[in-house]
Amino acid sequence: MAPDLRSYVRDIPDFPIPGILFRDITPLLGNAAAFRESVEAMSRPWQDRGVDYVAAMEARGFMFAAPMALAMGAGFVPIRKAGKLPGPTRSVSYQLEYRDDELHIHEDAVPRGASVLVVDDVIATGGTAAAVVALIRELGGDVVGLQFLIELTDLGGRALLGDCEVHSVITY
Amino acid sequence: MAPDLRSYVRDIPDFPIPGILFRDITPLLGNAAAFRESVEAMSRPWQDRGVDYVAAMEARGFMFAAPMALAMGAGFVPIRKAGKLPGPTRSVSYQLEYRDDELHIHEDAVPRGASVLVVDDVIATGGTAAAVVALIRELGGDVVGLQFLIELTDLGGRALLGDCEVHSVITY
Repeated sequence: MAPDLRSYVRDIPDFPIPGILFRDITPLLGNAAAFRESVEAMSRPWQDRGVDYVAAMEARGFMFAAPMALAMGAGFVPIRKAGKLPGPTRSVSYQLEYRDDELHIHEDAVPRGASVLVVDDVIATGGTAAAVVALIRELGGDVVGLQFLIELTDLGGRALLGDCEVHSVITY
Repeated sequence: MAPDLRSYVRDIPDFPIPGILFRDITPLLGNAAAFRESVEAMSRPWQDRGVDYVAAMEARGFMFAAPMALAMGAGFVPIRKAGKLPGPTRSVSYQLEYRDDELHIHEDAVPRGASVLVVDDVIATGGTAAAVVALIRELGGDVVGLQFLIELTDLGGRALLGDCEVHSVITY
């Protein structure tokens, strides 16, 4: 039987700031069967969709996107905070749940017309995900869809993602 | 034939500061065959060694350690900068190639006596890796060894790792 993934997510109140209930996935990552099932569940909707690249935001997105890229035979594209990518980048500023931030992508990371799946561990307000979609489209990439492990539905993040196809495995 | 991994590493001079030659692995990550071969080559020495957990430092280490953990049926343990892990942590301060930093691990991430493989993309001075080994031993974990994609041999990082077993795939 597949592990009950929700039981491996730990609630931490008031992190990183008072009033935020943080969904801590480290118990899930630490359990080999739960981590495997998470990656498989996140890959399932996209297996036969011709994904060329899986793009993910640092740092927790990398943990899921890297094995998903390998499972799909796709390349992996890291999207990072300012000052981390060494080559020429495009960047976008955006508003997070509790602060502002900036994301960068290498200009040559995604060939024009390539099919790109966007992956992150959590969708909250959708601000980060929408910023990544904008970055990939600026390079001429075709966003096939977005996949999250966890969706915080109260925050309505999907509304920021227009008509993109969005899947999540665990909803709160 | 296996891809020539070295040909997918791009040299970027003077990043992040003047005088540093940065080995940029994003072309390797973006090529599905090269990324797959990298993860397989990094996993090979450890397949039958009873690894319980693969631990990695954010953020590039995650890209390799997560698929390696899945391939070995091991749990994945993220080691992070200050303020990122929500639960109680142990931390260690250490000197990097060009600045000081601090790493944290969740106190409950590694059970006493568990076998832990430490993974990162690059070993330079060895300061980060030695700090991670110290963190895992503080929790009572048994460090089976360390695996890197790239080793900058001129910086002599292995000397900081005592009698730990260390492997790397590409050396400069």
